[in-house]
Amino acid sequence: MPTRSAITDADLALAAELGQQLRVDSVRSSTSAGSGHPTSSMSAADLMAVLVSRHLRYDWDNPGHPGNDHLIFSKGHASPLLYSIYKAVGVISDEELMTGYRRFGSRLEGHPTPVLPWVDVATGSLGQGLPDGVGVALAGKYLDESPYRVWVLCGDSEMAEGSMWEALDKATHYKLANLIAIVDVNRLGQSGPTELSWDLDTYRRRAEAFGARVFAIDGHDIAAIDQAVTQAGDLKGEQPTVILASTRKGRGFSEVEDREGWHGRPFPPEMAERAIIELGGERHLIVRGPEPAEAASARLDRSGSEVKPPVYDRGQKVATRKAYGDTLAALGARHDVVAMDGEVSNSTFADQFAQAHPERYFEMYIAEQQLVAAAVGVGVRGYRPFASTFAAFFTRAYDFIRMAAISRASICLVGSHAGVEIGADGPSQMALEDLAMMRAVYGSTVLYPSDATSTAALVQAMADLEGISYMRTTRGAYPVLYDAGESFPVGGSKVLRSAEDDQVTLVGAGVTLHACLAAADQLREEGTGARVIDLYSVKPVDTATLAAAAAATGGRLVLAEDHHPEGGLGSAVVDALTSLGHTELAIAHLAVSEMPGSGTSEELLDAADIDAAHIAAAARRLLA
Amino acid sequence: MPTRSAITDADLALAAELGQQLRVDSVRSSTSAGSGHPTSSMSAADLMAVLVSRHLRYDWDNPGHPGNDHLIFSKGHASPLLYSIYKAVGVISDEELMTGYRRFGSRLEGHPTPVLPWVDVATGSLGQGLPDGVGVALAGKYLDESPYRVWVLCGDSEMAEGSMWEALDKATHYKLANLIAIVDVNRLGQSGPTELSWDLDTYRRRAEAFGARVFAIDGHDIAAIDQAVTQAGDLKGEQPTVILASTRKGRGFSEVEDREGWHGRPFPPEMAERAIIELGGERHLIVRGPEPAEAASARLDRSGSEVKPPVYDRGQKVATRKAYGDTLAALGARHDVVAMDGEVSNSTFADQFAQAHPERYFEMYIAEQQLVAAAVGVGVRGYRPFASTFAAFFTRAYDFIRMAAISRASICLVGSHAGVEIGADGPSQMALEDLAMMRAVYGSTVLYPSDATSTAALVQAMADLEGISYMRTTRGAYPVLYDAGESFPVGGSKVLRSAEDDQVTLVGAGVTLHACLAAADQLREEGTGARVIDLYSVKPVDTATLAAAAAATGGRLVLAEDHHPEGGLGSAVVDALTSLGHTELAIAHLAVSEMPGSGTSEELLDAADIDAAHIAAAARRLLA
Repeated sequence: MPTRSAITDADLALAAELGQQLRVDSVRSSTSAGSGHPTSSMSAADLMAVLVSRHLRYDWDNPGHPGNDHLIFSKGHASPLLYSIYKAVGVISDEELMTGYRRFGSRLEGHPTPVLPWVDVATGSLGQGLPDGVGVALAGKYLDESPYRVWVLCGDSEMAEGSMWEALDKATHYKLANLIAIVDVNRLGQSGPTELSWDLDTYRRRAEAFGARVFAIDGHDIAAIDQAVTQAGDLKGEQPTVILASTRKGRGFSEVEDREGWHGRPFPPEMAERAIIELGGERHLIVRGPEPAEAASARLDRSGSEVKPPVYDRGQKVATRKAYGDTLAALGARHDVVAMDGEVSNSTFADQFAQAHPERYFEMYIAEQQLVAAAVGVGVRGYRPFASTFAAFFTRAYDFIRMAAISRASICLVGSHAGVEIGADGPSQMALEDLAMMRAVYGSTVLYPSDATSTAALVQAMADLEGISYMRTTRGAYPVLYDAGESFPVGGSKVLRSAEDDQVTLVGAGVTLHACLAAADQLREEGTGARVIDLYSVKPVDTATLAAAAAATGGRLVLAEDHHPEGGLGSAVVDALTSLGHTELAIAHLAVSEMPGSGTSEELLDAADIDAAHIAAAARRLLA
Repeated sequence: MPTRSAITDADLALAAELGQQLRVDSVRSSTSAGSGHPTSSMSAADLMAVLVSRHLRYDWDNPGHPGNDHLIFSKGHASPLLYSIYKAVGVISDEELMTGYRRFGSRLEGHPTPVLPWVDVATGSLGQGLPDGVGVALAGKYLDESPYRVWVLCGDSEMAEGSMWEALDKATHYKLANLIAIVDVNRLGQSGPTELSWDLDTYRRRAEAFGARVFAIDGHDIAAIDQAVTQAGDLKGEQPTVILASTRKGRGFSEVEDREGWHGRPFPPEMAERAIIELGGERHLIVRGPEPAEAASARLDRSGSEVKPPVYDRGQKVATRKAYGDTLAALGARHDVVAMDGEVSNSTFADQFAQAHPERYFEMYIAEQQLVAAAVGVGVRGYRPFASTFAAFFTRAYDFIRMAAISRASICLVGSHAGVEIGADGPSQMALEDLAMMRAVYGSTVLYPSDATSTAALVQAMADLEGISYMRTTRGAYPVLYDAGESFPVGGSKVLRSAEDDQVTLVGAGVTLHACLAAADQLREEGTGARVIDLYSVKPVDTATLAAAAAATGGRLVLAEDHHPEGGLGSAVVDALTSLGHTELAIAHLAVSEMPGSGTSEELLDAADIDAAHIAAAARRLLA
């Protein structure tokens, strides 16, 4: 246990009072909404009362203060507690709390999102706040070099998520003494007791084995909390801290305290009245803790020297993944650009950035959830992260990507080795769902360049896009199609073959664009004009160019993609064309519709019916 | 350390020889293919030589023998080693190994898949074999009650995946002494050293903290391996076992042993020759270990009593998630039906099965990756798993679902609380990407019933479907639309409103179907006939009925879904209609295109433009 801190009786009493206020307000707000999690808020109220009143360094009038500590509710369902804190520090009114919580149009959503200026990341899918916090702490230690701390309130149920252990592992690897996880061990999950109940010893052994400094306390003992939080926040040493707090769900209201059946249930009004009475009635304390240090605002260098992107010669064979690495390394001239990878940087070519800018490269090893969470976290601090792995393995982090969109994060994801084109490694390594997955993410941008020049341009564009942007790169080397200097606006496309007499349009991206070009050449020899569109921007998609091509070629389009038939490039085209009102179409959609095995690229593209010969044949059938 | 086992000098020599053969054959096969991972195979060769020659109870002539041990290569990239084992036990020929490995059309794929009869699950996305093994071990201990063991060869790099710790946590929780993880700690990952190098002490502390019995050995010491494996396989106690084996990547070939830069690289032919010489030349030993016990085949009860599905009255308001729970509990009359849930069984209503059939229900707590892996694992043993959680949280397990398809698994996934309909909880809990995600899975079935009767029918159908089937259920209670006894074939649909004078077709599922019906009633009052289609089967989709409706209503369709616009129900319809050759369409696609917040169902459905009023308005615009 830490040594006694200098907490006075008055401080103790104030924190205890604040804890009761947070409980009462959690009850009041959730009952007023008829929805929410009062009991999960009540268990953690004392922990947060001590933290917020005595330790959290935060200028509540300036949530953008660069020296502010960060407070992340990984157990996002305790939003009544979080919003009650906002009332207690005076940044939202009691009225807003009582009339806004969980209401339509309100910023006090059921689970916290960054529509509130004091919220860094959206939570509510458990097991994400701590991994996100690792990203913020990485930025604090290595990029900002600022003494702010990252406090993460975790639930005990979410310790069952592997992502929590990925987070502790990385926090230890990167010596993040600025990261403190406070685990509210209230013993009860949604449908019954947690796996480990109040077995703090097992939690302790696990957290220590993963490298954390651990304090185990009674989470309703104000003095004990204060001691643990004091020591946790000292930034000495090189270990992250885990505070294990044994607590009681529904603490302070005898009708529900430590009882099953009260997860996620607001109290009916008359019951809430009894709870408020037992908790000592309404209070309206305004309590703030320490201010951030002024020195902490010094860093945050966002400048940089001029980016000198790579240049490729037309016809030269270059893999788009290589062009990604070249461009990312060049983008590193911007000091806000940060890169990370899932231990495959010599395949994704993120290693070129790692070599050029090692101080802004973070190896996340084979932990794709933490990879994406780290990107979100450094993004909270204003950096522009590029996270890469095999495209197939971003499926591992889909929940994190979905939540990143709700976090209003701006992150760049780059997945290599897409589709059957990769060849011998077989289906486990073939991304065949990634375009569908990424298109379905709110506000996402999905890019799929076919050559090195367009890749270089689009990687640069990604660095300034808002929201979740995704680029799919290709394993093999294919000819450069464009001259340096050509522009590739996001949402655009390129018409690579076009003539007055075009009878059919061929649409592809990545490896299939090269196949479309070859097919168009075959068709031209047969006297058939085929328009070819490079659909490098899958979302947003260039509806106008597609519609013009459809109109010019009798509505006949061959859509070819190295992806399953659902939700990818073909869907993007068909969705766009049918969004225009009355449409006449004759579509041939070529995609990977059987389970591939191993083989050469050529064999597998042929077997999937997406090579030049199959594209040409599909065009002929449309014209027959 | 375990006590000395009774291994003789001759046994030692044989195992050592076999280890060298496995190395030589790993080199030969990968060099012949020009692709593959010889060095990652060589590190684990001694471990596998001892296991296979002396411990693995397996009738190689009958891979379906119910008493066979299971051997899963979680480090699937060591496929040269696995296939070299198959040669060593005499089930594939040297010729097949040399001419098939990684070749087009061959069953010896780059990473193992169950096209081979001795492979349980596809691996190659790291961190999945051990979680899958947990599922097999659950079946062994609780369902089959059979003494087979589940041996899982793990890589050290994949210990960075949180899913590995979810697996150990659950193995401990369920006291799976029949699960043995053998970790090949060869110190080197793909792009450089692993996080923990040869720090077996840290691995040991972590594994022990997660409840495992741990043996740490020199993975090239045949006697030490034999001792550890002997003790690990004894099935005494209640702990899973982890054998931590320190090994050297590329072991036995001095040019590459323990050197960086040789991950995933076959040796050029002349280098392979030197390796084979240094390893003592080619060998063609045939070595088998012990047979499975005959007694082990006793159990595996697949029978059961008659299923009595629930019956609902038309007009009665019942949530489809409740109908899922009712039907699942009834399906439990079939002894092969198993259920599991991610600690939200009182929301998904899987708790009804848990109460009725506790011996076949597995609580997976908040660990969705392990949830899906457990389903895959019990499926390996012939059981029919139903795994449920909030639909949004299946995104957490997308990589596992994708891999389950490659594993040719037949598993039933059921996600509740879909879309903005859930109301106050906000976007973190709203599945808005799940239809896109699940449609893009190879061979998947995607069902989205709108009422309790169709839910009951479709849950029963799922229990006999091949591949990955997914059902999306709804939070709120809506009127029962169909009489009991109505049939709902997978791939079908229901036309709920239809008249000669229909001018527009409204297509919905789940909550939007009820909105379509209300909109049709409004339109009818205005004199406009609107056909209404219940698209309960989103994949496969009823193209014929959709095409007939499009033809009857001038190609005018309103598609309404509580999902993001990409890849869901709307895409399914448009993809189907444009697959028919020349098509004339006028589509209005209503979907959730802005970021929702909290609110009531009604407010959020209105704000998303997918309620009855918006559907009717869209129909009017199409007719204007």
